[in-house]
Amino acid sequence: MEFTFLGTSAGTPTKSRNVTGLALSHGGPKRWYLIDCGEGTQHQLLRTRHSVMQLQAIFITHIHGDHTFGLPGLLTSASMLGRTEPLVLVAPRPVKTFVEAAIGNSDSNLNFELRFVDSEADNFHWEDEALTVTATPLSHRVSCRAFALTEKKLERQLLRDKLEADGIEAGPAWGRIQQGHDAILDDGRLVRCEDYTRIARKPRKVIVAGDNDRPELLREACSDIDVLVHEATYTQEVSDRVGPWPQHSSAAQVARFADSAGVPNLVLTHFSSRYQFSPNAYPHIGEIESEARGIYRGNLFLARDFASYALGKDLILRISE
Amino acid sequence: MEFTFLGTSAGTPTKSRNVTGLALSHGGPKRWYLIDCGEGTQHQLLRTRHSVMQLQAIFITHIHGDHTFGLPGLLTSASMLGRTEPLVLVAPRPVKTFVEAAIGNSDSNLNFELRFVDSEADNFHWEDEALTVTATPLSHRVSCRAFALTEKKLERQLLRDKLEADGIEAGPAWGRIQQGHDAILDDGRLVRCEDYTRIARKPRKVIVAGDNDRPELLREACSDIDVLVHEATYTQEVSDRVGPWPQHSSAAQVARFADSAGVPNLVLTHFSSRYQFSPNAYPHIGEIESEARGIYRGNLFLARDFASYALGKDLILRISE
Repeated sequence: MEFTFLGTSAGTPTKSRNVTGLALSHGGPKRWYLIDCGEGTQHQLLRTRHSVMQLQAIFITHIHGDHTFGLPGLLTSASMLGRTEPLVLVAPRPVKTFVEAAIGNSDSNLNFELRFVDSEADNFHWEDEALTVTATPLSHRVSCRAFALTEKKLERQLLRDKLEADGIEAGPAWGRIQQGHDAILDDGRLVRCEDYTRIARKPRKVIVAGDNDRPELLREACSDIDVLVHEATYTQEVSDRVGPWPQHSSAAQVARFADSAGVPNLVLTHFSSRYQFSPNAYPHIGEIESEARGIYRGNLFLARDFASYALGKDLILRISE
Repeated sequence: MEFTFLGTSAGTPTKSRNVTGLALSHGGPKRWYLIDCGEGTQHQLLRTRHSVMQLQAIFITHIHGDHTFGLPGLLTSASMLGRTEPLVLVAPRPVKTFVEAAIGNSDSNLNFELRFVDSEADNFHWEDEALTVTATPLSHRVSCRAFALTEKKLERQLLRDKLEADGIEAGPAWGRIQQGHDAILDDGRLVRCEDYTRIARKPRKVIVAGDNDRPELLREACSDIDVLVHEATYTQEVSDRVGPWPQHSSAAQVARFADSAGVPNLVLTHFSSRYQFSPNAYPHIGEIESEARGIYRGNLFLARDFASYALGKDLILRISE
């Protein structure tokens, strides 16, 4: 499981940071998922290894333009580049209206089916062969969701001792049950996958949250997660100065929550466009980082545009090359 | 008058070229106008000296997404950055519908008035204090326009000999009539601006055309222009292979027209995303250039993203630094 950040700026782009977009790779060498799609997401993708041809689904956390205005271009470009595979769009209903208005008023059409799924339906649940996705409501100026993505199809370990004890010799049946199927031996015996394999690890689970001023809403959903990606738009001092209206989180707020919830890996993103990464710039992103690091004791990252982070089976998140 | 190209790629962006957008500076140190607004135009602007605060008007040639999908982001960012001055949007009606759908379905609002002007109205004509703009219908898959922009407020030269012959001495009245006003002397005489000044040059006029497969439609409009900016999506060979459906021009077509119409300065743009500028790349933009140069005998440029071209009062177009 690998995340690539396509944009880490809140509201408006900067020269070096785009508005929100996150690519999650999982389930195959090129399969990926997109979470949020600010303007310019298709441009950012040109600088990654991700192709719109292998995109499985798009998840939109909320309707704000810095999370949605890249959809018309990404979808119509995918069509122009030859995509014919259906594409899932999980989003609030107004996003569907917006996308349809964009396509309908630009003489565009998509040569693939866009399968809309309402992210705000009661008990929202979506899955494909590689992932299960659920949503948690957040607190923002508009309805907003955190998406929890859990891997499926974990690899099975053979219970070799038991197989040998029962006289089932190494052969094609071993391969079949390791793939998750039952097998029938030459002598007619049924070998149940369930009886002779086990899943040796828990599925990886990550939460990618949209804009939110109450991280504690994620406490229950975070009880068994490996990674939380959450906005930290300001430091606490700037947040206090800006006031509560934008309904964003400070670094301190998120750090306090993640620490108390025992989140092992935390990635902060969606930084106000005022923050800069270049040395000696002011205000520097280091202010957000030190505020968070002073509180949160887990594995912390501040997302950068185009940076990739891999969550290995050891459940430790690492910057990947 | 200065043009800065914000995007020169047709249909989809490439790593080095954005989709269509053109900034025209005129009428003051920071005043500018935008012609077409593909996705990512606001991002490109961050790398120029143009600010959305000084943008006077936006002109959209036609409804295709690679000319319009940047509007929602550019407009909402302008609002977030503090713009309160009204902004004119000259465009086909579906663009208004698209922009309103984008704003209405993203919890956005503009803190300035967006003054929509229908570019396809009969006898379309728009002007402000610096420019007069008219439109010519083109031939494309959808209704499309070329905009002719003509400068206003040309500087007046004093007819000094006549002033002196009539006993009107150098003083405040000279300054007043040079500014275009009449003046009254201390002795009560009326000095008419018209009688004692003249405009020594013709106004600069440029045409920026949208997508079009029949350049000859511009013959009448081009009779007195100084610069034509026109698409040249392909070479003739590629155009023949692609077939007539996309309704674009080849370099040869535009060059032939511009040469026969006596267009003195020609800038080609809107190159298929297959063309590349980097040395040794294939197909190279040089194919378009040599095709055009073999036919057109005037002053030719192939637009590059972020390149600026100044049209001086000597009516020669030059790359500007």
